[in-house]
Amino acid sequence: MFDFCVADHTLPFGPAGYSCKNPLMVNVNDFSSSGTLNAPNTDNIYKAGLSTAFVNTIPGLNGLGISLARVDVQPGGVVPLHTHPDATEVITMLQGNLTVGFISSNNTVYVKSIGTGDVFVIPRGLLHFQVNSGINLSVELSAFSSSNPNTQIVDEALFKSNLATKIITATTFINPIEVLRLKLLFKGSG
Amino acid sequence: MFDFCVADHTLPFGPAGYSCKNPLMVNVNDFSSSGTLNAPNTDNIYKAGLSTAFVNTIPGLNGLGISLARVDVQPGGVVPLHTHPDATEVITMLQGNLTVGFISSNNTVYVKSIGTGDVFVIPRGLLHFQVNSGINLSVELSAFSSSNPNTQIVDEALFKSNLATKIITATTFINPIEVLRLKLLFKGSG
Amino acid sequence: MFDFCVADHTLPFGPAGYSCKNPLMVNVNDFSSSGTLNAPNTDNIYKAGLSTAFVNTIPGLNGLGISLARVDVQPGGVVPLHTHPDATEVITMLQGNLTVGFISSNNTVYVKSIGTGDVFVIPRGLLHFQVNSGINLSVELSAFSSSNPNTQIVDEALFKSNLATKIITATTFINPIEVLRLKLLFKGSG
Amino acid sequence: MFDFCVADHTLPFGPAGYSCKNPLMVNVNDFSSSGTLNAPNTDNIYKAGLSTAFVNTIPGLNGLGISLARVDVQPGGVVPLHTHPDATEVITMLQGNLTVGFISSNNTVYVKSIGTGDVFVIPRGLLHFQVNSGINLSVELSAFSSSNPNTQIVDEALFKSNLATKIITATTFINPIEVLRLKLLFKGSG
Amino acid sequence: MFDFCVADHTLPFGPAGYSCKNPLMVNVNDFSSSGTLNAPNTDNIYKAGLSTAFVNTIPGLNGLGISLARVDVQPGGVVPLHTHPDATEVITMLQGNLTVGFISSNNTVYVKSIGTGDVFVIPRGLLHFQVNSGINLSVELSAFSSSNPNTQIVDEALFKSNLATKIITATTFINPIEVLRLKLLFKGSG
Amino acid sequence: MFDFCVADHTLPFGPAGYSCKNPLMVNVNDFSSSGTLNAPNTDNIYKAGLSTAFVNTIPGLNGLGISLARVDVQPGGVVPLHTHPDATEVITMLQGNLTVGFISSNNTVYVKSIGTGDVFVIPRGLLHFQVNSGINLSVELSAFSSSNPNTQIVDEALFKSNLATKIITATTFINPIEVLRLKLLFKGSG
Repeated sequence: MFDFCVADHTLPFGPAGYSCKNPLMVNVNDFSSSGTLNAPNTDNIYKAGLSTAFVNTIPGLNGLGISLARVDVQPGGVVPLHTHPDATEVITMLQGNLTVGFISSNNTVYVKSIGTGDVFVIPRGLLHFQVNSGINLSVELSAFSSSNPNTQIVDEALFKSNLATKIITATTFINPIEVLRLKLLFKGSG
Repeated sequence: MFDFCVADHTLPFGPAGYSCKNPLMVNVNDFSSSGTLNAPNTDNIYKAGLSTAFVNTIPGLNGLGISLARVDVQPGGVVPLHTHPDATEVITMLQGNLTVGFISSNNTVYVKSIGTGDVFVIPRGLLHFQVNSGINLSVELSAFSSSNPNTQIVDEALFKSNLATKIITATTFINPIEVLRLKLLFKGSG
Repeated sequence: MFDFCVADHTLPFGPAGYSCKNPLMVNVNDFSSSGTLNAPNTDNIYKAGLSTAFVNTIPGLNGLGISLARVDVQPGGVVPLHTHPDATEVITMLQGNLTVGFISSNNTVYVKSIGTGDVFVIPRGLLHFQVNSGINLSVELSAFSSSNPNTQIVDEALFKSNLATKIITATTFINPIEVLRLKLLFKGSG
Repeated sequence: MFDFCVADHTLPFGPAGYSCKNPLMVNVNDFSSSGTLNAPNTDNIYKAGLSTAFVNTIPGLNGLGISLARVDVQPGGVVPLHTHPDATEVITMLQGNLTVGFISSNNTVYVKSIGTGDVFVIPRGLLHFQVNSGINLSVELSAFSSSNPNTQIVDEALFKSNLATKIITATTFINPIEVLRLKLLFKGSG
Repeated sequence: MFDFCVADHTLPFGPAGYSCKNPLMVNVNDFSSSGTLNAPNTDNIYKAGLSTAFVNTIPGLNGLGISLARVDVQPGGVVPLHTHPDATEVITMLQGNLTVGFISSNNTVYVKSIGTGDVFVIPRGLLHFQVNSGINLSVELSAFSSSNPNTQIVDEALFKSNLATKIITATTFINPIEVLRLKLLFKGSG
Repeated sequence: MFDFCVADHTLPFGPAGYSCKNPLMVNVNDFSSSGTLNAPNTDNIYKAGLSTAFVNTIPGLNGLGISLARVDVQPGGVVPLHTHPDATEVITMLQGNLTVGFISSNNTVYVKSIGTGDVFVIPRGLLHFQVNSGINLSVELSAFSSSNPNTQIVDEALFKSNLATKIITATTFINPIEVLRLKLLFKGSG
């Protein structure tokens, strides 16, 4: 309908994305970024980090259904079990090695060790993970089929939130002592 | 494009759904069912069961992006933590009471106790659960925004599959003893 | 793109739905309702009534393409000939019996008598109807593949509007005396 | 995904359209037609006729969501009350004059007399009609937002089908004598 | 979701189109136009002209994915090589003759001479052109699968813009003298 | 609808993509590839090359609307003026420097020099190009919002095809001598 619809974050937004910036105010910088994919901080419990080129940093992505992220994982680090509720992810390994996998809804595991230059597809919405069991930092570039992919990390949903322990144990069958240990680890309440 | 496209399960299927049955062979029974929403068996670890009216039982649903299920939960039972990777779910309580909730990707919990006649919406792709903490069987009717919604139960993905314990512990931080206990419970391997 | 886009009815709306409420102001009540599916008033010409759980009463449905309604029909009552221009409807009978049917664009009639627990699909956009020829109130739950399904009742379009009698007779071939009788019945003008 | 997907009517078809012809067998004639929009026969009860350029005659339209028709209406003729369940229609008058109108789902009538060169939009799914109350043949070109728009004529759905008179009278409130007269006129049964 | 969403050009717009006008302020003129398809001016370098019935002149087209244009080409005139980045075009010849063609992404040419009443389909996004090598004005009606189709004319993108000659020669292999001649012709800079 | 639909290239395909492989025959290699993004051959007129991870090499991409390519450009090389008729492209520079730009349909040029780590967005369907005016090989990773993006190179459409010189000169205004020179260069006929 339009050549493009650069996000104007000051206007209302709706199910299809952000309102468009006045086309006369659009310039090439709305479609590009420097540094958004710099090495992310990996000094955390996962020994992994993410830097993103999503619609919040590149407003020209609005409405176009695609975006990028760089994911670095230190040796021994992981991208914990998570989903992207509305996006397929396609990984390209730029450096190092990873074990990457997803699980289908009939509980089949699709897992593989990949190295530099390899590509791996994670169909939209499915649980997946990455593990760096090597001795070098791994660097991957991930493309997403959404301009603003959300990420739901199972551990954080359960243990970094205020979800009641009673509900967690009932709906995951994890024993309450383990739940409390994980709540301490992830700083959850409830 | 067509008035309808009744699924012919003997023909190839693609990203948009099943191939259409010859329209001359279609009759009213392709659009209806009796008994598909009968009381499901709840004699299982969850004390809950599901009966479905999806495209496999009502071929006329093909391509129409909607379907139904009935979910019964015994007192003390649960619908365990799960997602529908491609569908929103809208619950109507037909009988009894449930605690139902979902968690957003920024780890906010939306939880509520609902009773007969109440409606609850679970946006597509997000982790959610139901708990029957009452003393009566609960019966709900769920509508889905897919003619064939898939369901990914977190416990089954992890503990009923052949996903390696080493990967599970690394990507969920659940301790290996608990993982093994859950694998025994859910009959997983790996 | 977003986990959800709860409708803010004070902001502009567009072809894809309503603008999103500030996510910080969203709470669980935006995704649920009590009483919206209570027994509707059936004291009207159709001896039938509708209570709805659409995006106007459950703002969390915005952009999710699904909604619900309850339809009660008294003995001898009907849901008159109508279409939902943008939605498939899936009916579940909760109580009583109905004759339900739709007509395809090549004038084939798909009609069936259904009872409690039965499911019936009405593909989007097609003319359909329900008749309660039994002796008990019928109660159905209808799911729609739209968060705000519109309903066009043929009789009301013709006879409750200000469409000129001359146009009605010319385009429906119903004789003018009958048109006038129906205009009186439905309180139309023109 | 593909430059085009020319319909191969010998292969299975699905919700998104027909299977694609082998691209090596495609030629320019798959994208064009001569004579498909010739003057249609108007010797019928409506004094109106339709010639179409839909995917059945131009296989290159498959998957592209657009098609054309020519509609001729004799003086005193009509395009009877109908809907296109999945398509918007945009009319351009090539010759003569018509009264054209549609009715919204809140029973508002949008009606206008249009002449050569005028354009009129009928939003998808809504009841509409055309009446030639002039003294000359009218010729219009209609574009549809579907490569294979279906048409549901209310009179034919009711009176040219085998829908039971009892159901018709109950769901339309048209008196049974008038129903029988119209069934005779349209050669329906039931 | 709505019967229609008439464009209100004073409100924000987004990827799915313009915001909707208050339905109470909508009237039949929002869905129709007179004169928008009058004979366009063809006194230009192409000896061709375009008059449009897009969402800017018919606000009722908003969100409906369809629109119209009339294209007149004088003898010896052309519609220069161009694309519609988001729309399929379906041409109907109303008067005269044209050579019309498109090129697929594997460099196959689909070209044909068409005359009054003929229809020709140009799949979305592909390079195409029209040439009037006859001796009479040609008049065509084009339908587009977008309510606001954009048009990218290759010559104007290159030679009417401020794209640097050095870039043009490098990326098109057209020699710089020819580039400068064309820039003079099209009044480009750079 | 399905967790995934891995392409089976032996079955019919349609507008939404390829038919799905029997899910029981799917394995992890359907979702991954090694070597598909190896350094491409750049020994050609453009001094540039492309290696792709599209649905033809990774069948698991079918229906998911995303894919990848690696583009290498030698110093002095170019990616010639082209469009992707159905895909947005997001470029990440992995090595070297490029001048990259696109042109909107109102002839505005959006051009920028980018280096390692920079990201650049090219909205779907618009003419664009890359020029390596540096002294080192440039390597970029491009993500596309299509599982099988097509590419239309303007020079090849015109000069590597059999499009008649008379049509080319008429519709591009390039003088015939230059057209013939370019046809020789690109080995076109016509």
